[in-house]
Amino acid sequence: MVKVEFPNLFQVVRPELNALETYLHDDLQEAREGVREVVSHLLAGGGKRVRPALVFLAARFGKDAQSPQIMKVAAATEMIHMATLIHDDILDEALLRRGVATVHTVWNRRVAILAGDYLFARALGLLAETRQPEATLIMSSVVRQMCDGEIQQNVAAMSGDLPTEADYLDRIGKKTALFLAESCRLGALMAGAEEWKQRVLYTFGWSMGLGFQIVDDLLDFTATSVAFGKVVGVDLRAGVLTLPLIHALLNSEEPEKTRLAKLAQSRGGGQSEWSELQSILGRSGSFAYAQNVAQRLVTEAVDSLGVLPANEAKEALLSMASYVVEREA
Amino acid sequence: MVKVEFPNLFQVVRPELNALETYLHDDLQEAREGVREVVSHLLAGGGKRVRPALVFLAARFGKDAQSPQIMKVAAATEMIHMATLIHDDILDEALLRRGVATVHTVWNRRVAILAGDYLFARALGLLAETRQPEATLIMSSVVRQMCDGEIQQNVAAMSGDLPTEADYLDRIGKKTALFLAESCRLGALMAGAEEWKQRVLYTFGWSMGLGFQIVDDLLDFTATSVAFGKVVGVDLRAGVLTLPLIHALLNSEEPEKTRLAKLAQSRGGGQSEWSELQSILGRSGSFAYAQNVAQRLVTEAVDSLGVLPANEAKEALLSMASYVVEREA
Repeated sequence: MVKVEFPNLFQVVRPELNALETYLHDDLQEAREGVREVVSHLLAGGGKRVRPALVFLAARFGKDAQSPQIMKVAAATEMIHMATLIHDDILDEALLRRGVATVHTVWNRRVAILAGDYLFARALGLLAETRQPEATLIMSSVVRQMCDGEIQQNVAAMSGDLPTEADYLDRIGKKTALFLAESCRLGALMAGAEEWKQRVLYTFGWSMGLGFQIVDDLLDFTATSVAFGKVVGVDLRAGVLTLPLIHALLNSEEPEKTRLAKLAQSRGGGQSEWSELQSILGRSGSFAYAQNVAQRLVTEAVDSLGVLPANEAKEALLSMASYVVEREA
Repeated sequence: MVKVEFPNLFQVVRPELNALETYLHDDLQEAREGVREVVSHLLAGGGKRVRPALVFLAARFGKDAQSPQIMKVAAATEMIHMATLIHDDILDEALLRRGVATVHTVWNRRVAILAGDYLFARALGLLAETRQPEATLIMSSVVRQMCDGEIQQNVAAMSGDLPTEADYLDRIGKKTALFLAESCRLGALMAGAEEWKQRVLYTFGWSMGLGFQIVDDLLDFTATSVAFGKVVGVDLRAGVLTLPLIHALLNSEEPEKTRLAKLAQSRGGGQSEWSELQSILGRSGSFAYAQNVAQRLVTEAVDSLGVLPANEAKEALLSMASYVVEREA
């Protein structure tokens, strides 16, 4: 499997990101062997460190971008992210994550659940160490919303009900965008940025996060496995309906509407059904529709940054926004 | 299955415990349907509310036993406890908890993992709401130690190595005693008790907690399922060696030593092997030994309270200590 590297968007905070690797590694030495091995395995697997990068970039808009609290928050976001990945992989019975064997396959489910719990607890403890209660409150809420979003998705998949576009946006907001938005906000907060800047950066993270997830869900239909670096078609096979299909089911004409519903119900079926589905979604303009929604959101994200002073961090955030809608994998 | 009721030890904090039920119920209304149902199911299943009771009792030694922060801490301890039970039950593939079907059997593993994560996050958020960073730091550490203890147990069970008595005490300290000790300390802290009182109550919780777990592990050999309210012999079947067996393996003479090692290795075997094991442990004095260790720890717990002023809460803690070693189920 080809591993897709995130483009070099975060060059400007590379020193902080390098320091983060050391910080995470050192912090987790405290843990017992089992947890330590699990986390070392995950850290070695790489990952884009998107949330810490957002924390560091947002911190550049504050008076004190060198505050030691920023590293704690950045580390906490990555730990929470790792914990959700570990628990998700158990739920999805995934064998690979970032091209590396998943924790529950290398060790066992017990260790995987406990390592996730450990990381959640450590992350919220690190946030408490900043002595800013908001940090823990905000991330506690992020975790709860992510759980809510996951359960919502699970309940919807089992019910077989057709979600609306609003349901979909609500769900990806909880699952993805809130965490990115709050990472931006907390970076700015910890660096002592004015409240209006915190709000601007939160808005950027929110809209960019929604756009990112829509494109991710779109690529699950249109990308090839090799380019995407992971298996495609997983959402539908899990019974999860995303924007292109929701749009097509609501807007297509008969007889395609009935055919689509059947394909959706059978969760994609075999290769020929999958090709048929792709071709209907393409013809109905649903791929283009999803791409446009993502583009609109990312434009909102870019526009929101207009009021911020120009600096390297702003450039990096703008490049990230372009990447989100332009990426093809 | 007969449900064993905890004796009426907590009468003096009954008003607080009743208010806690309402508080937990109301707080979790915020959660999405899936989590809410899971938690309602758990709350309806009852439970002894030992940790909240310790928080409330310890708070009686402070200047402000009515501080609203105390309820938040009490609720957080019960949420953390519930989260660990939910995750443990998945790991153990348990079908019943407190006589009620376990979460992952009524719903599914996905909902169970997420509901546990939700509760951890909510608990640590509630602690942050007290605006005392220590509260989150302490409970974050409790959760991590519990995870460490569980993993340690898991690793030991898989290795087949014979733990020492010190390994055993270290493990039950992390798994059980620390949480009880910190519940006591936090109750006192939140009520503004002097630091020396916090330390005394912590020590009480620690020693009492160790005594409690030793007796619990002893009853896993000696109780009948009906009296115990749960299946017996589960530790050994899971490959977990507890004090009576550790003592016997280290101190018995041949040929019993070899026979015991064989029985331990086969994880108890059938009914006749189980009876044989019970009889060897009885003869070798290992049951009596474990009971004595527990008694000594509980005596330490009782003695530590000597310096505290006499009040109803102290009476309740002393009764609880007696109960711990006298209970037969």
